[in-house]
Amino acid sequence: MHAPSSPLDPRFSLGVDIGGTKTAMGLVSPQGALLEHLSFETHSRRGIQDMALRLNRGLETLLQRASLEKKQVDGMGVGCPGPLNLETGEVLNPYTLPGWEQGSLTQAIEATTGLRVRLENDADAALLGECWMGAGQGKNPVLMLTFGTGVGGALFTDGRVYRGARGEHPEMGLIPVHTGMPKDYSGVDGSLESLASGSGMAQRGEPLGWSHARAVFEAAQDGHPEASRIVDEALEAVGRSAWVYAHTFCPECIILGGGLMDHHFPAFQQRMQQALDQASLIARNLIEVVPARLGNQAGMLGAASLMLKSTLS
Amino acid sequence: MHAPSSPLDPRFSLGVDIGGTKTAMGLVSPQGALLEHLSFETHSRRGIQDMALRLNRGLETLLQRASLEKKQVDGMGVGCPGPLNLETGEVLNPYTLPGWEQGSLTQAIEATTGLRVRLENDADAALLGECWMGAGQGKNPVLMLTFGTGVGGALFTDGRVYRGARGEHPEMGLIPVHTGMPKDYSGVDGSLESLASGSGMAQRGEPLGWSHARAVFEAAQDGHPEASRIVDEALEAVGRSAWVYAHTFCPECIILGGGLMDHHFPAFQQRMQQALDQASLIARNLIEVVPARLGNQAGMLGAASLMLKSTLS
Repeated sequence: MHAPSSPLDPRFSLGVDIGGTKTAMGLVSPQGALLEHLSFETHSRRGIQDMALRLNRGLETLLQRASLEKKQVDGMGVGCPGPLNLETGEVLNPYTLPGWEQGSLTQAIEATTGLRVRLENDADAALLGECWMGAGQGKNPVLMLTFGTGVGGALFTDGRVYRGARGEHPEMGLIPVHTGMPKDYSGVDGSLESLASGSGMAQRGEPLGWSHARAVFEAAQDGHPEASRIVDEALEAVGRSAWVYAHTFCPECIILGGGLMDHHFPAFQQRMQQALDQASLIARNLIEVVPARLGNQAGMLGAASLMLKSTLS
Repeated sequence: MHAPSSPLDPRFSLGVDIGGTKTAMGLVSPQGALLEHLSFETHSRRGIQDMALRLNRGLETLLQRASLEKKQVDGMGVGCPGPLNLETGEVLNPYTLPGWEQGSLTQAIEATTGLRVRLENDADAALLGECWMGAGQGKNPVLMLTFGTGVGGALFTDGRVYRGARGEHPEMGLIPVHTGMPKDYSGVDGSLESLASGSGMAQRGEPLGWSHARAVFEAAQDGHPEASRIVDEALEAVGRSAWVYAHTFCPECIILGGGLMDHHFPAFQQRMQQALDQASLIARNLIEVVPARLGNQAGMLGAASLMLKSTLS
């Protein structure tokens, strides 16, 4: 027999971070502590229903480990690569998550777990996590840029994620930063993404024998002039992007995350800060460029915060 | 003897639009009708107190014309060229409004008129006006760009003006759109403002004998190749700026205002729409480029809306 739950009991929340390869889920306290977490292969081709069942099993495991009961959990926030339909809970990304094009992921999870579920773009979930418990705490507005295979971005303003028309997610990696440069897949010549993403740098290095961004950086360090040029142009693009973001969003803080930042944050930060120091009026001495602090826990924490906030409000 | 006012009486609001040369003020209904308005020379060198007295006289004139009493007025919103301190009500623009550097404009007006007063950046006030009663009605987010002597911009999102760190106003005209181009006063090479503002085009045309943007446009229409080049580069910059704004703000609507739009809106709109049609994912078919509709009444209406909204909330 269990004691009846009181409205004053602490309420917990599940945060789920779905990626093309792996899915991580964690049990989060209202204070932002990640009590327990686990991860498993995503296997999206098995379908939405199968994912819902595995999330339910994961939920039971986490509750058991934390000695909590399901009624102490307020709901599950789910971060997922977009495009998403946040209203219907549909995942519309056949490249990263094939097999999920039909039906609502949130409805399937709600039906299986009995919990309230909220879906969020994965970049936005990571931003919310960093703003809640990481590098963006107490800052407003906060811009987070993610340099990985592509370049993504998200903006936090007055306690929430900025959304564009019809709830669309901005595509901050696609801003043009150079002319006369190679076009990226969207047809922009010299977009930030085409010059400073992992895939963009690899594409530019490949004819010269460097098939990964890391190889380009290493060759540049060894003094190879062509590799140095690719790195310089990436950093130049990063500096120019800082100028764009300073004058459009004027954030208090720019958080840099993503795989490229594991090794190259200092170079990226230095070039951004240099550009910002030259900027007029608002940007100078106002905008801080900092590394993401929560690594792969940001998505779980941010997803969990979606439920805690809706509980508190 | 007057009948006692009931809480159901309609409440009116004053909207003031202060410029370097002229100041306009109007009496606005809760439905956004501009009942009466008047304007006078700003003469900022006479000081803040003198402006407060003239606004009070203007208020009395407007009330008389509309057969209203002061107690039917909820307050006065004031749009003014920045930089401003919105908290203290100080105006910190010695170029446009010399003589107002000392003291709080809002406090002076409150003390003289007995009304509550709220200050707002003039570009933001015009944006609020267009979103309330003009070209941005029912749209979200809305970006307004003003092409005049400079290029200004403001963003409306979820019912309010977007603000940057410490309440700073973004400087959207200063985004870089070209490399290898002349630097503007802030040191950006090829900013939107240096290429597509009235003063930027005049500066580029001056060595060739055209000292105003209008002269450059006219020479281009007459087929002068150098003038055509300046106009083409201005339009190219405008197109590239649309790409930047699409991927950062993803607005539902871009409103173009300012003096240059009196004659050149079709050319600017066409180039922006062309760029947006090429944009990936979110921008295509989503973002409308429209002319400002309220002209010089936008600032008064937007300033008035600041008070009506705070009444309603």
